[in-house]
Amino acid sequence: MSDQSPRAVVLLSGGLDSATCLAIAQRDGFEVYALSFRYGQRHAGELLRASRIAAQAGVARHLVVDMPLAAWGGSALTDQELTVPKHDTVEGIGSEIPITYVPARNTVFLAIALGWAEVLQAHDLFIGVNSLDYSGYPDCRPEYIAAFERMANLATKAGVEAAHRGGPPAIRLRTPLIDLTKAEIIRCGLALGVDYAQTLSCYDPVDEDLACGRCDACLLRRKGFAQNQLSDPAPYAP
Amino acid sequence: MSDQSPRAVVLLSGGLDSATCLAIAQRDGFEVYALSFRYGQRHAGELLRASRIAAQAGVARHLVVDMPLAAWGGSALTDQELTVPKHDTVEGIGSEIPITYVPARNTVFLAIALGWAEVLQAHDLFIGVNSLDYSGYPDCRPEYIAAFERMANLATKAGVEAAHRGGPPAIRLRTPLIDLTKAEIIRCGLALGVDYAQTLSCYDPVDEDLACGRCDACLLRRKGFAQNQLSDPAPYAP
Repeated sequence: MSDQSPRAVVLLSGGLDSATCLAIAQRDGFEVYALSFRYGQRHAGELLRASRIAAQAGVARHLVVDMPLAAWGGSALTDQELTVPKHDTVEGIGSEIPITYVPARNTVFLAIALGWAEVLQAHDLFIGVNSLDYSGYPDCRPEYIAAFERMANLATKAGVEAAHRGGPPAIRLRTPLIDLTKAEIIRCGLALGVDYAQTLSCYDPVDEDLACGRCDACLLRRKGFAQNQLSDPAPYAP
Repeated sequence: MSDQSPRAVVLLSGGLDSATCLAIAQRDGFEVYALSFRYGQRHAGELLRASRIAAQAGVARHLVVDMPLAAWGGSALTDQELTVPKHDTVEGIGSEIPITYVPARNTVFLAIALGWAEVLQAHDLFIGVNSLDYSGYPDCRPEYIAAFERMANLATKAGVEAAHRGGPPAIRLRTPLIDLTKAEIIRCGLALGVDYAQTLSCYDPVDEDLACGRCDACLLRRKGFAQNQLSDPAPYAP
């Protein structure tokens, strides 16, 4: 990657979507600064995967920020007293805001990404949100992303200077997966060489390396591989 | 404060503006949850003041969140290698974005406030930004605040549910100081019993208890007291 490449901050959870998003950012010519959060996830497996994916992709830097969202409670993803719901099929997923929703998570993550981007003089933030095969979180919808981008251009030096020049908005939120089905995301990632065996998508893994197979995230992922007539390289609990 | 009072999250830095903002939130009938950040400030004096102000005001809870903005650098407020600019007068303050600007600071702080509010089922966020006697930070302007509020209503359960009902936006960013001069803020706070001797506004204090007297924040504060023909109870370096 040459020094002339524009920089981008890529949110990297260690899951299938963010790994694909990172590969797309590199395909599009960006020098990638990957950003992950230790936010009280039930399992550290996600962050281990994020580090491996970042290293394999040869990113310029991988920053892991401690963000104790769990101290506030309120989500089954960070609160040990709440139970992650399990299903047998994907029917009904996304029809209401689920208990796995972490309050303001994407807003907090994007805010920190924006601050880092400003220091790096990067104008592009990649986030692997998806509005089709998704769990119904409000902060994954296109209208949310557009509103954050607008706010970001009012919040930052780069945004204010671009507005003074009368040019287009400087800060761009890039959501290359937003209109793709999970099956399409997987096809795109495979074409770019993403190693999905390295990714962990599960909300409630049995251990660092074994996905539960029945939470919303597992069901959506399995459906995506099945629709491509591929077997998912992730190991699942029997 | 009765259990029936609506809850509000109030950003509390320990400075004059946020202490006044907290008093206004209480006057307006809110049960206050005060939020401060340990973000790599040059001096811990600010947080000590925040804790004292919160205790004196009898808030429901004071949460201090570790937020290592300093790890990224880029601001004289958190970077020991940069120098906080000093002046003899307030002329020119606010005409451009200064080196004391912390990248995306208010965006990060408000994002975390939003997450905490969601867990508390609070809909009101107070922030003591000011667009008159201010340092020229882009994230203190009314258009930024309006854009954040719009985003917040798209990001959260409460916002989405209010939109489904066709009602007004659920999440409100309250900026009671935004159109006030520093002199007006001080008059308002004194009427509400704010003890300004407890507050520390300086960007570059000599020690925990001694303000420099010549940074932008000190100059604006001193002008505010002088315009009220009052002496500032803060101790300044000679």
